[in-house]
Amino acid sequence: AAMPFPASAQQDPLPSWNDGAAKQAIIRLVTATTTKDSTDFVEPADRIAVFDQDGTIWAEHPLYSQALFALDRIATMAPQHPEWKDTEPFQSVLANDSAAISKFSEKDWLEIVTVTHSGMSTAEFETLVKDWLPRSSNPILKRPVTDLVYVPMLEVMSYLRANDFRTYIVTGGGQEFVRPYANAVYGIPREQIVGSSTVTNYEYKDGKPVLMREPKMFFVDDGVGKAVGINMFIGKRPLIAFGNSDGDRQMLEWTTAGDGARLGLLVLHDDAVREFAYGPANGLPDTKVGAFSQSLMDEAASRKWTVISMKNDWARIFAEPK
Amino acid sequence: AAMPFPASAQQDPLPSWNDGAAKQAIIRLVTATTTKDSTDFVEPADRIAVFDQDGTIWAEHPLYSQALFALDRIATMAPQHPEWKDTEPFQSVLANDSAAISKFSEKDWLEIVTVTHSGMSTAEFETLVKDWLPRSSNPILKRPVTDLVYVPMLEVMSYLRANDFRTYIVTGGGQEFVRPYANAVYGIPREQIVGSSTVTNYEYKDGKPVLMREPKMFFVDDGVGKAVGINMFIGKRPLIAFGNSDGDRQMLEWTTAGDGARLGLLVLHDDAVREFAYGPANGLPDTKVGAFSQSLMDEAASRKWTVISMKNDWARIFAEPK
Ligand SMILES: [Ca+2]
Ligand SMILES: [Ca+2]
Repeated sequence: AAMPFPASAQQDPLPSWNDGAAKQAIIRLVTATTTKDSTDFVEPADRIAVFDQDGTIWAEHPLYSQALFALDRIATMAPQHPEWKDTEPFQSVLANDSAAISKFSEKDWLEIVTVTHSGMSTAEFETLVKDWLPRSSNPILKRPVTDLVYVPMLEVMSYLRANDFRTYIVTGGGQEFVRPYANAVYGIPREQIVGSSTVTNYEYKDGKPVLMREPKMFFVDDGVGKAVGINMFIGKRPLIAFGNSDGDRQMLEWTTAGDGARLGLLVLHDDAVREFAYGPANGLPDTKVGAFSQSLMDEAASRKWTVISMKNDWARIFAEPK
Repeated sequence: AAMPFPASAQQDPLPSWNDGAAKQAIIRLVTATTTKDSTDFVEPADRIAVFDQDGTIWAEHPLYSQALFALDRIATMAPQHPEWKDTEPFQSVLANDSAAISKFSEKDWLEIVTVTHSGMSTAEFETLVKDWLPRSSNPILKRPVTDLVYVPMLEVMSYLRANDFRTYIVTGGGQEFVRPYANAVYGIPREQIVGSSTVTNYEYKDGKPVLMREPKMFFVDDGVGKAVGINMFIGKRPLIAFGNSDGDRQMLEWTTAGDGARLGLLVLHDDAVREFAYGPANGLPDTKVGAFSQSLMDEAASRKWTVISMKNDWARIFAEPK
């Protein structure tokens, strides 16, 4: 598809961003930390950037992609589980009852994720994810989930990497769900995916070791877990952090509490025409998926975090279908 | 100090290694995985090397360096704990009773490590480690612990990195104990240290977040934990793994179970003259610190792992004191 930008935009590292405070803040942070005589200069080895995934670098409505994966797995596994036909929450999933699904409790989701994400080796799980991705489909946008990546954020990642930043995903989603596609979709290698994980058991099959995924969480990389995860997996404080919901609060606090130039940014979904509109911050509709509360908006103001308006800051959101 | 090698050795990537099966196996693995037309060629992004720390890349006798740190901390903390004067295991530590210390149980050590490694922020802990290192002293070799690094292994790390491998430490020791010095001592950055960790709590001090170290283990990176840790922190299977004790068994199994060329190596401490001699494999003296059992030796033979004899394979062990 032709790029809807003038030729001069080739010099622009962020062509899908409209000029404004968000774009300027990103360029200012990169310039300050990479200019050799700047007081905020940072050695390349310490240039770390962290990105939440759902709602920050790809679409998360009406349901997280990993939830769509889990629901599709329920359908696939149903023949081996005749009891699901009359047991909730499985009954509603098999009936494709999206009204009921949208009202599932945390406990319902935990049950669905547990049964669909454990009982196989890490290698087998990866194969399930890879096989599912090309036939995945966002129920509203009707495209595979890996098509629903935000082009402006891909540009930010490329811009940061061109300036010797390493880009990490720090997601509440499953680390082993994201790893199989992150390099192809975002250019982020497996070792730079920080995410939630299950307990794994070391076992032998035909004399070779396998790691079996157990029905028990090991690490929940959300909220305070994101600060803990950044410390544990990276051990360096990021210079810049991108999030979109209350689960990113501590990640941005941890990032921006560092010395020197730091930047926290939050994506606000205020574009019902091109994507979705939800908050409840700024009077936008409330949601159970990726809520951006007014309290987070207030903290963003007091801590001088930058709010990215999808409607105003992004000249485009998704790549054209191929 | 002058290098005790002929000028022609400048071409040799491993000048502190005597010619032999171990040196040849390392060079063969690197050549096979980095030669473009080799069937075992591996892209640079997937060239991962993992090293156990204690007894593999630095000395661990008579006690692990982190144990020495903990004992010194007990002495420093004693004025605030008058009750330690007549409570074991602290009493023996304060009396410098090395016979009693050598007989401490796992429970004794857990108590010592817990009290000395928790109750402070991650940043405060790092300062304690950094302040201690230059005044640390191995009780037998009488040098700071960071001097007791094995030169042949530093050469292996440099050789691997020159061939676009990334070198990781995978240690049963504390991840946050190793991070403060690993870059200076081994050239390994903080994000490439996989180790054991405590639970941390996210708290605020003067409006800024801190991670407080709690008296509770979160992850034990030893034995099966090393395979789990490699999967969780790196997510790529190493091409080459170096260990020295039974705690490295699963790390070597996991590494060498991969497709293509892989190499597992175990350092055998069989040099009582220049360092220490302990097994109990091959009839060497038994030990509570870094035991290399006969069962591990048997598995090394059956899985074709390479055993490195410190006595025969290494032309030198430590760098000369500066
Ligand atoms: Ca999110
Ligand atoms: Ca060891």
